[in-house]
Amino acid sequence: MLAKLPRANPDGVVLDLEDAVAPNAKADAREHSREAGAMLAREHPNLAVYIRVNARLTEWFDDDVARGVPAGAIGIVVPKVESAADVHAAAHALDRAGLHELSILAGIETVAGVINVAEILHEPRVGACYFGAEDYTADLGGVRRADSLEVLWPRSRVAAHAAHAGVLSLDQVVTELRDEEVFRLDAQLGRSLGFRGKLCIHPTQVGWANESFSPSPTEVERARRLIDAFDHAAAAGHGTIAFEGQMVDEPLARRARAVIAGAAEE
Amino acid sequence: MLAKLPRANPDGVVLDLEDAVAPNAKADAREHSREAGAMLAREHPNLAVYIRVNARLTEWFDDDVARGVPAGAIGIVVPKVESAADVHAAAHALDRAGLHELSILAGIETVAGVINVAEILHEPRVGACYFGAEDYTADLGGVRRADSLEVLWPRSRVAAHAAHAGVLSLDQVVTELRDEEVFRLDAQLGRSLGFRGKLCIHPTQVGWANESFSPSPTEVERARRLIDAFDHAAAAGHGTIAFEGQMVDEPLARRARAVIAGAAEE
Amino acid sequence: MLAKLPRANPDGVVLDLEDAVAPNAKADAREHSREAGAMLAREHPNLAVYIRVNARLTEWFDDDVARGVPAGAIGIVVPKVESAADVHAAAHALDRAGLHELSILAGIETVAGVINVAEILHEPRVGACYFGAEDYTADLGGVRRADSLEVLWPRSRVAAHAAHAGVLSLDQVVTELRDEEVFRLDAQLGRSLGFRGKLCIHPTQVGWANESFSPSPTEVERARRLIDAFDHAAAAGHGTIAFEGQMVDEPLARRARAVIAGAAEE
Repeated sequence: MLAKLPRANPDGVVLDLEDAVAPNAKADAREHSREAGAMLAREHPNLAVYIRVNARLTEWFDDDVARGVPAGAIGIVVPKVESAADVHAAAHALDRAGLHELSILAGIETVAGVINVAEILHEPRVGACYFGAEDYTADLGGVRRADSLEVLWPRSRVAAHAAHAGVLSLDQVVTELRDEEVFRLDAQLGRSLGFRGKLCIHPTQVGWANESFSPSPTEVERARRLIDAFDHAAAAGHGTIAFEGQMVDEPLARRARAVIAGAAEE
Repeated sequence: MLAKLPRANPDGVVLDLEDAVAPNAKADAREHSREAGAMLAREHPNLAVYIRVNARLTEWFDDDVARGVPAGAIGIVVPKVESAADVHAAAHALDRAGLHELSILAGIETVAGVINVAEILHEPRVGACYFGAEDYTADLGGVRRADSLEVLWPRSRVAAHAAHAGVLSLDQVVTELRDEEVFRLDAQLGRSLGFRGKLCIHPTQVGWANESFSPSPTEVERARRLIDAFDHAAAAGHGTIAFEGQMVDEPLARRARAVIAGAAEE
Repeated sequence: MLAKLPRANPDGVVLDLEDAVAPNAKADAREHSREAGAMLAREHPNLAVYIRVNARLTEWFDDDVARGVPAGAIGIVVPKVESAADVHAAAHALDRAGLHELSILAGIETVAGVINVAEILHEPRVGACYFGAEDYTADLGGVRRADSLEVLWPRSRVAAHAAHAGVLSLDQVVTELRDEEVFRLDAQLGRSLGFRGKLCIHPTQVGWANESFSPSPTEVERARRLIDAFDHAAAAGHGTIAFEGQMVDEPLARRARAVIAGAAEE
């Protein structure tokens, strides 16, 4: 499956040593991930390869960092980060293993992680983060809902603090494996809240995520019309226009320009 | 009504000296609550008996604590707690009255209380808390909505900080006395947000609350099937399974085990 | 348009030097706003006249404060306030210009502004604030939604901290110019969250805003019936009543009294 994964065109891949691996299989998983990760990084230079280690206070953490990281990986995913101290511990483990260039993708997926998110994401070694709704709700003692209202507060908080810290943010997993509508609705809300992408648990979800986090052709087309009208008005000294029933001033024009720039990057 | 109340099978009861008692009836209410509370505690040893005193800065607070607490009560409910200083004042009043064993159930129901919730709930004398939507909205100058979206932020915040502080959290009252559907929808969201139970204002609501905050038979049944499949896969070295269209790994298995354990406690 | 504006009966007016004015038109706009603002203040003594200056770190800020403020204005609107330091800078600029009586209406419309909202709104020179959803979402890198769920957290946070700081709060703009239903639904949620009024971008919206932020005749009528019943019961020593299927105690009675008082002020 790993060899075929790049066909789905993800921006990155996370090889998991944590929840996806049973306790008695951790050592084997390290070896396998190191080899498979190195192959992926070698054959797909644009693919960001990460390894997810076990949480800091588990018995596996040190060996995961020392022996599980493939050549060519750009970082480690540290689950259940709860404080700046957790980031320091991961950074020290990376440095002890000689992995000075690798950054940390921090999992914010506990109540403590959400409460302490500001100090965590401002740590310089943290380059990215994700919000994990399943683990968060389990830690909280709550229950997942189809509408995700129960995580609107932590999810909003994580995306906003990530933007404030200049850290890339990834939205929660959708555990329903093949339900496209559920995935797209969830991704749409995630993008609205400021997340830059989404964790996927199946290759099928990758295409949906890529589409959901890029402006649609309709959005791009509307943004172009808006900028035409706005620039035309600005040349005549007007800073505000009525455009298709909506008042448009500088902030909306800025957003339209960002949509066009985002589309041009594809 | 108090004598019949235990038939509804609540986990606890709060005898109110605050909002339910007119200013000119406070002294009588103290005496009555002391007697009725002592009787309830004596006849129903598993029932947690609380007395709600008036807020700290009212003229009634000191006498409520000194003279209103029944024998056998396990704590006092302090409404409108706004800071750690309010908790200290209540703790000192309890100590002066010789009630060293009683804990505080803190009402978080003002804007200041929601903003300072972390310092309040981490006070060691606080054993539990509730979120009060009616008082919060009145203090805020807002308006209640049928969908409770206006309190999603403070409600999420209180439940999460309670989980972080290791404090039992109780969800908001539903003032519609006999509307079962309204109560159950509200309770469902409260449970999703991490509350452990719900304040009730009528015996009829108690049964709905008990059902809403316990896993349903369908949930328990599904959790058992999930754990069977998961353990079977784990024995074969797999940490992740596809179960009824959903990806299941350790966090979801943990939640399923919690559901089964919760049902076994009933 | 400015001369006709008071017919729509707004509580205040903001003359904009920021987003509505193209960069090459800033100097002309200052002169025009000073004259038009002074005329409005002179002819409509009950109208609160504000001038919106450009953000602190722009090249226009100092001249806007020094030369753009009309006689009779009661304050300046400072967009994109991100910290207490931004408030200090604006306060100093006002003092340098000899405008010691003018207060600051702070725009909370960036991620940093929302995160630092407590320190901003507790600055004594800040008399009011608004939440700006368009700029906030642009700064966050998010996307606006029809249901505004993407700004529920920042919007709730701003209104609550404004209430805590004793600062008047104004709800987000609705950019759809003539869609009454969209405006009223948005205003209803804004009022529920504790905002005291709403920024309008067209005279048509002013009447909708005034109605949305005042109690409706039905609300006032119900409040009167409730208070009648409540006071009657209180005279007989009861602090709680069942009123039209709802339990009513002191907090609900307090809200009803506020509704009646609000209607009497109109």
